[in-house]
Amino acid sequence: MSRYVIIGAGAIGAPVAAQLRATGASVVLVARGAHGGAIRADGLRYVRPDGERRVQLPVVGSAGELDLTIGDVLVVATKTHDTEAVLQEWAWRPVIGGTTAAESLPLISLQNGLENERAALRRFARVSGAAVWMPSSYLRPGEVVAPGEPSVGVLWLGGYPSGLDPDAPAWATDLRRANFVVRLVEDLPRWKAGKLLSNLANAVDALYVGQEGTGPLRRALQAEGRRVLEAAGHDPADLTADPEIDLAGFRLAPGLNDRYGGSSTRQSLGRAAGRTEADFLNGEIVLLGRLHGVPAPLNAAVQAAVAQAARDGVPPGGGDQTVLDDLLGIAGEVAR
Amino acid sequence: MSRYVIIGAGAIGAPVAAQLRATGASVVLVARGAHGGAIRADGLRYVRPDGERRVQLPVVGSAGELDLTIGDVLVVATKTHDTEAVLQEWAWRPVIGGTTAAESLPLISLQNGLENERAALRRFARVSGAAVWMPSSYLRPGEVVAPGEPSVGVLWLGGYPSGLDPDAPAWATDLRRANFVVRLVEDLPRWKAGKLLSNLANAVDALYVGQEGTGPLRRALQAEGRRVLEAAGHDPADLTADPEIDLAGFRLAPGLNDRYGGSSTRQSLGRAAGRTEADFLNGEIVLLGRLHGVPAPLNAAVQAAVAQAARDGVPPGGGDQTVLDDLLGIAGEVAR
Repeated sequence: MSRYVIIGAGAIGAPVAAQLRATGASVVLVARGAHGGAIRADGLRYVRPDGERRVQLPVVGSAGELDLTIGDVLVVATKTHDTEAVLQEWAWRPVIGGTTAAESLPLISLQNGLENERAALRRFARVSGAAVWMPSSYLRPGEVVAPGEPSVGVLWLGGYPSGLDPDAPAWATDLRRANFVVRLVEDLPRWKAGKLLSNLANAVDALYVGQEGTGPLRRALQAEGRRVLEAAGHDPADLTADPEIDLAGFRLAPGLNDRYGGSSTRQSLGRAAGRTEADFLNGEIVLLGRLHGVPAPLNAAVQAAVAQAARDGVPPGGGDQTVLDDLLGIAGEVAR
Repeated sequence: MSRYVIIGAGAIGAPVAAQLRATGASVVLVARGAHGGAIRADGLRYVRPDGERRVQLPVVGSAGELDLTIGDVLVVATKTHDTEAVLQEWAWRPVIGGTTAAESLPLISLQNGLENERAALRRFARVSGAAVWMPSSYLRPGEVVAPGEPSVGVLWLGGYPSGLDPDAPAWATDLRRANFVVRLVEDLPRWKAGKLLSNLANAVDALYVGQEGTGPLRRALQAEGRRVLEAAGHDPADLTADPEIDLAGFRLAPGLNDRYGGSSTRQSLGRAAGRTEADFLNGEIVLLGRLHGVPAPLNAAVQAAVAQAARDGVPPGGGDQTVLDDLLGIAGEVAR
């Protein structure tokens, strides 16, 4: 049986670890700082629609504290801007019964954007990824909420750049037992691109949560993103229209609405993290647009706006109104 | 006139800064740790074929210590594995007379591999790069040697992904005045790919410097690399056969032979840095091979070998003989 080494204990990693642990799967959580310390000392305080529980999880702070062995699966659940550091830390660790992690262990990215699997494949021979649909939040050190129901979340899981890892069916079995809906896909980049389109409005959610009138901006961001992705040779899947997954029957438990922190970008502003993942969401569209000669002025403007807000410590919903007017203006021009 | 903000004060960044400074160009060097402290306190001890001098340079330790202004050019000269951190630190800094660095300032990468310009373009609107041919070494904190003669080094400089930045001719003028040979190219990726081919043997130089019989390994690494690059759509230029650049007339001053630390990968082992740039040299070939279905077993084996050596603190030339035999075996199979 696999042991899941879950790197990153935030809104994605911690619930995945807790759910797997509850079904008896072998799990190690890699968590640093105050959050890691709290989980190590008192367990993870884990909030679900049916209540709150404390989940005891083995925690390490870094790769150096863990002996890797054949059978381990590295699951990366950090923000994309931390991926390079994670790969540097883990790729060349020795593996008992094998050689190094990069050569001997599979890696699964549960991250947003298009860059993570590509960066991993520079070192790791077996790279898988998932488009993850999972409303969940880091609340405070030691505490996360996963308000999805009836399942915790939905994963489109596949090999990168295509196909399926031989162990993917076993991972899917473990994850389904742990109350995730899992579809195995042999065309992972289509699902990651589809997820990316839905993430392009994260920055708007972060800057202007609760404000009326941002709909045209969100739609224009996605339309521009789709044009760029298609010019770059992507064929984004529509996650909400997948006949094999009933996303309409999946919801955020109403009782936990007020504890859900919104998009990961909004949560980054909430934590005053100083940065967000937008450089790998809107920024990925900007990059592909520049590489393929398709302008993406709206995604560029949103990327810059949220980066400056994060830099300046602007709280969720605290986005500048003049900037919003400017963005709506660009959205109008782009839509024309 | 431009002010060059040179990020990274190693074997590339420090000589570029010293040469520009000597011609009166405006330069700021970004350097950390003991090296930065030594340059700040006593100037850079800078060794050239015509002697040694102490160069006083303005030094800052981080982006927060510098007010950026329109006219600044960011020159990135770190190892590729530090690029993501550099971009995160600098991209969204405010710019006097502009908005942010990413939006208002040009960036030039003087780094190896194919990933740096791409990573920069996710944030920066104006990205240039150069294939750099420059024998130079970091010696100890505060000290570098640049033994190239008659010029300090050769740069093929161009815009990314193609074309030329409008300011590129002015940069070329400044760099030529500072004793670099500069060719402006509108097809930068061809020159970077050609340089990458020459870098594929860096790890062999690092692990087995001075040993006989590594020639077939070096040649097989490059042959495999070329096959992969071509399958990925690259058309590597031959830097040594450029009719516009007399590389044959460019040499390492014999008197400084014993002070030149060899390839950047060898220098990383010498510093016991714990890691090398090989994941973005051999590893780039491995990545492209995996993406395009062309096996690259030799580059993968060399990448793993040097990564493990760096991890284990192996000194330059201390590569394992059994590993060398294995690599030569793979080289023989690949060449067949």
